Amino acid sequence: MKHREKSILNRFVPVTDWIRNYNYPDFQNDLRAGLTVGVILIPQSMAYALLAGLPPTYGLYASVIPLMIYAIFGTSRQLSIGPVAIISILIATGVSGIAEQGSEQYIAIVLGIALMVGATQFLMGLSRLGFLMNFLSNPVLSGFTSAAAFIIGFSQAGNLLGIDLEGSKYVIVVIADIYQNIGQIHLPTFALGLGSLVLILIIQKIRPKLPAHLIAVVLSTFAVWLFGLHEMGVGITGDVGSGFPTPALPALFDIPFWNILPTVLAVAFLGFTQSVALAKAMTGPETDYKVDSNQELFSLGLANMIGSVFNAYPVAGSFSRTAVNSENDAKSPVSLLISALLVLLMLLFFTSFIYYLPNAVLAAIIITAVPGLIELGEVRFLLRVRKRELALMMITFFATLLLGILEGIGVGVLISLVIVIHRSTYPNIVMLGRIPETDTYRDLNRYPEALTQTNTIIVRVDAALYFANIPYFKEQLEKLELESGKKLNQIIIDAIGINEVDASAVQGIKDLVSSYKERDIKVIFTGVKGPVRDMFQRSGLDDTIGPERFYVDINEAVESLTDEKEEESHLV
Amino acid sequence: MKHREKSILNRFVPVTDWIRNYNYPDFQNDLRAGLTVGVILIPQSMAYALLAGLPPTYGLYASVIPLMIYAIFGTSRQLSIGPVAIISILIATGVSGIAEQGSEQYIAIVLGIALMVGATQFLMGLSRLGFLMNFLSNPVLSGFTSAAAFIIGFSQAGNLLGIDLEGSKYVIVVIADIYQNIGQIHLPTFALGLGSLVLILIIQKIRPKLPAHLIAVVLSTFAVWLFGLHEMGVGITGDVGSGFPTPALPALFDIPFWNILPTVLAVAFLGFTQSVALAKAMTGPETDYKVDSNQELFSLGLANMIGSVFNAYPVAGSFSRTAVNSENDAKSPVSLLISALLVLLMLLFFTSFIYYLPNAVLAAIIITAVPGLIELGEVRFLLRVRKRELALMMITFFATLLLGILEGIGVGVLISLVIVIHRSTYPNIVMLGRIPETDTYRDLNRYPEALTQTNTIIVRVDAALYFANIPYFKEQLEKLELESGKKLNQIIIDAIGINEVDASAVQGIKDLVSSYKERDIKVIFTGVKGPVRDMFQRSGLDDTIGPERFYVDINEAVESLTDEKEEESHLV
Repeated sequence: MKHREKSILNRFVPVTDWIRNYNYPDFQNDLRAGLTVGVILIPQSMAYALLAGLPPTYGLYASVIPLMIYAIFGTSRQLSIGPVAIISILIATGVSGIAEQGSEQYIAIVLGIALMVGATQFLMGLSRLGFLMNFLSNPVLSGFTSAAAFIIGFSQAGNLLGIDLEGSKYVIVVIADIYQNIGQIHLPTFALGLGSLVLILIIQKIRPKLPAHLIAVVLSTFAVWLFGLHEMGVGITGDVGSGFPTPALPALFDIPFWNILPTVLAVAFLGFTQSVALAKAMTGPETDYKVDSNQELFSLGLANMIGSVFNAYPVAGSFSRTAVNSENDAKSPVSLLISALLVLLMLLFFTSFIYYLPNAVLAAIIITAVPGLIELGEVRFLLRVRKRELALMMITFFATLLLGILEGIGVGVLISLVIVIHRSTYPNIVMLGRIPETDTYRDLNRYPEALTQTNTIIVRVDAALYFANIPYFKEQLEKLELESGKKLNQIIIDAIGINEVDASAVQGIKDLVSSYKERDIKVIFTGVKGPVRDMFQRSGLDDTIGPERFYVDINEAVESLTDEKEEESHLV
Repeated sequence: MKHREKSILNRFVPVTDWIRNYNYPDFQNDLRAGLTVGVILIPQSMAYALLAGLPPTYGLYASVIPLMIYAIFGTSRQLSIGPVAIISILIATGVSGIAEQGSEQYIAIVLGIALMVGATQFLMGLSRLGFLMNFLSNPVLSGFTSAAAFIIGFSQAGNLLGIDLEGSKYVIVVIADIYQNIGQIHLPTFALGLGSLVLILIIQKIRPKLPAHLIAVVLSTFAVWLFGLHEMGVGITGDVGSGFPTPALPALFDIPFWNILPTVLAVAFLGFTQSVALAKAMTGPETDYKVDSNQELFSLGLANMIGSVFNAYPVAGSFSRTAVNSENDAKSPVSLLISALLVLLMLLFFTSFIYYLPNAVLAAIIITAVPGLIELGEVRFLLRVRKRELALMMITFFATLLLGILEGIGVGVLISLVIVIHRSTYPNIVMLGRIPETDTYRDLNRYPEALTQTNTIIVRVDAALYFANIPYFKEQLEKLELESGKKLNQIIIDAIGINEVDASAVQGIKDLVSSYKERDIKVIFTGVKGPVRDMFQRSGLDDTIGPERFYVDINEAVESLTDEKEEESHLV
């Protein structure tokens, strides 16, 4: 990895950085990768728009401007952004209860969501809050994605079978619905859908280099036109406005804000998490750039915000297309620009082609994405490594499947928060003893042969003290005193691992020192760092402790003690 | 502090513990304290019921059964529970939008909330989730309480002035409303209210031992009866059912669950936080018991659940009454039982007295509680110690005042979560060097004179690695490598501070080791603890690293290196 200090411009507008060394061989690579991704993007984006409850052209809209914006501001050079399955199903679930899928009001709400998703990501990026995205645990994310995959698959059953299903967020209801309407299967639709599905799978198996999705789309559209299948009742896209949409700011005022807030947060969050995980996975020892989480948030936010003005629904990094982009050795986001241009050409000159596009082939395309989302590998890994985390994965999986997709992610967020707070609440706090014949003090649990003092315990804290862990710190001191079995004259707190204390911690330590004082136990601090000592002084804690009770290290503190002898620890 | 191992029974039903040593002198103390608290509790509980939008008798109902339950199950021996101001205003704010204050439906919803609050606390206590309550920071809590104090004060302006105000959750609207209706002041009401307020303040000032609230209540009620003030339009309580309510389970099915959920969570959470903070503040070096957070959650939950069956609205520990209880040397929860019996007598034989009770005196009682809730001391403390946390306090304060009380606590929760996640995400990770003439390795930032190796960096992590901090761990390793300016042949990770790793961390370390491998850099681990090593083995990470690359300590690892020389660090 080559790194150097970057200017503000290079950091916030990465294109200004990589463009300087950009050359013709790079462009050749990007052209090939961009075209390859583009022919996948066109059918896939239309399919995902259908999944999101939007007319297929909205998938194309989302594949032009956002890609261009990301090409300018994104830090990843291989990440392929655009419509993705998980975000599409989140939007369908979140908005279907408010407006009818595909209606003008529905589209308006989705574009409003895109603007808000973008603004959320943009502002979090600007305020360097990218770290917040780390709090969702892998098992929880995998459990959610796997369940969402089932929901995505079954959401397309109606389109594939040609049955008019009521649509429900509960997979179990959808299955019951299919079962009850199994007699209503529309055979031409089903034949077209199943045929497309089989065709795609075969091509992907035997000729993975061919654009399977595009071939299925072209052939099935041609079939509809040739045999007049739409007159036999096969669902097709029908008339769509041609050309590129004129820019217009989404109307936020008509949107029921509180109803869509969970959707906005889920999309902003999962879109970013997925994108940054992918972008980081694409870097290796050979790559000469670094993925910056906050800049990714910033650029994805800009892409979604500006995109929403051009009818783009929310985008994120796509697993499948990023893999293709990288396999084709894309060197820079120029490949994204090429893909976007291809989609733009399609929009400007070939939308009439979309008229005969059957929904069944889009459903087939969506269904081919399902297996890739079911994370059996993670199940096997967790089964071997940590069954406790497998349980977390399963809880999120079933919560998503049984309660609904937003409820599922809600459960996942709650579980993850409980874990984070738990971790944050219990720092390492250990009792120390002197290793014989050295002047080193070590954890007694690891070195039970270490020597302790007759009426003193020495305790080390390995974390910053603040409001969430100060109650545990107090409890732990009591517990260690009891464990030691000593009648205490003093307690030495080695503060070398404490980088920072907040006001609650200062208050807590003050209470602690006072209550030891009442018991005639001196509290001695060693290795207190500068900023921590400053806080002690400003708050008056320094006086409560007594300035003479601060020592540079444990040895100095122990030497100052009179009437103390060394003895074996209680652990021997 | 005397501690000993307690039996399950003693732990879950603390009464079985302390009752064994209970004696007559203790009872004399409890009797005095219980009666003193009781005469404060009777008027205060009626006033807080009014604040909560309930008929005053509901305050009395909440002061019988919940107190008895807590006396059996609570760990604190001085905590005085019952109706409190903050919870009352939370309930008024949460339920007023759904039903009309004081109506049957309103009361039903409040009792349903009490049951749910109790169940939430009970279940969290049972599942030992008390630690979750630590995540709210002091400044945030103080900011919220101080703003709530203003809202509480102004909520009673109408009752005190005898104006019919529309009632709003925004203080600013209430003030505007008072201003517009200033001409409508009902003089007899205002005179009675202001008179009571002045009377209470004077008694509290010159004869703090007298029950100021009760005297004001008795005198003003007598005045209403004597002069027939209610016929002049002074608002009085009027007819209330006499006697103790027959038990009935609150009807949960008619309640709009999602609408009241925020109220339930806020009440459950703040009620517990306030109670446990108070209970802990009452223990000192002399007390022979410990406050157990989880048992407090459990007992408070039981008190609220069983209480709700007897028409009790949610209760918590009261600042003012706990202080009085403790000043009167209460020795055990028997003092709570005495207070509860006093309230019960009132309910059984003296409810007719309540008929003439004027609302204005209850408003005056509520207003006297306001100054105690405004935490100017915390402002001064933070101003001196940490301005950053003062900003947090102010944000929560103004959010509560301007957005509303539930929104305010929501903002506080969000801020606190951001801090907790931030802390959890950035553990201590430092580069080590050997202190000359010893075999001790220390933080180079603190000991820049320590010696480093030519092509090796030694890094120590001071926290368990898991999903939230593993991204930072990776970044930090890169950063330290850059800082060292070395061309690395190996990196030594001292894992002595790592007590635990989760599956995400194992995966992260695997990626890390592989990517160093591609760069021909060996990763060596020292001091890996048993459970961590187990995880490494089960996950196959051990093989990725190479079992020969684990050493007991840094010295052993460094001695194994060939072609390495010691040199001064880059910090010299």
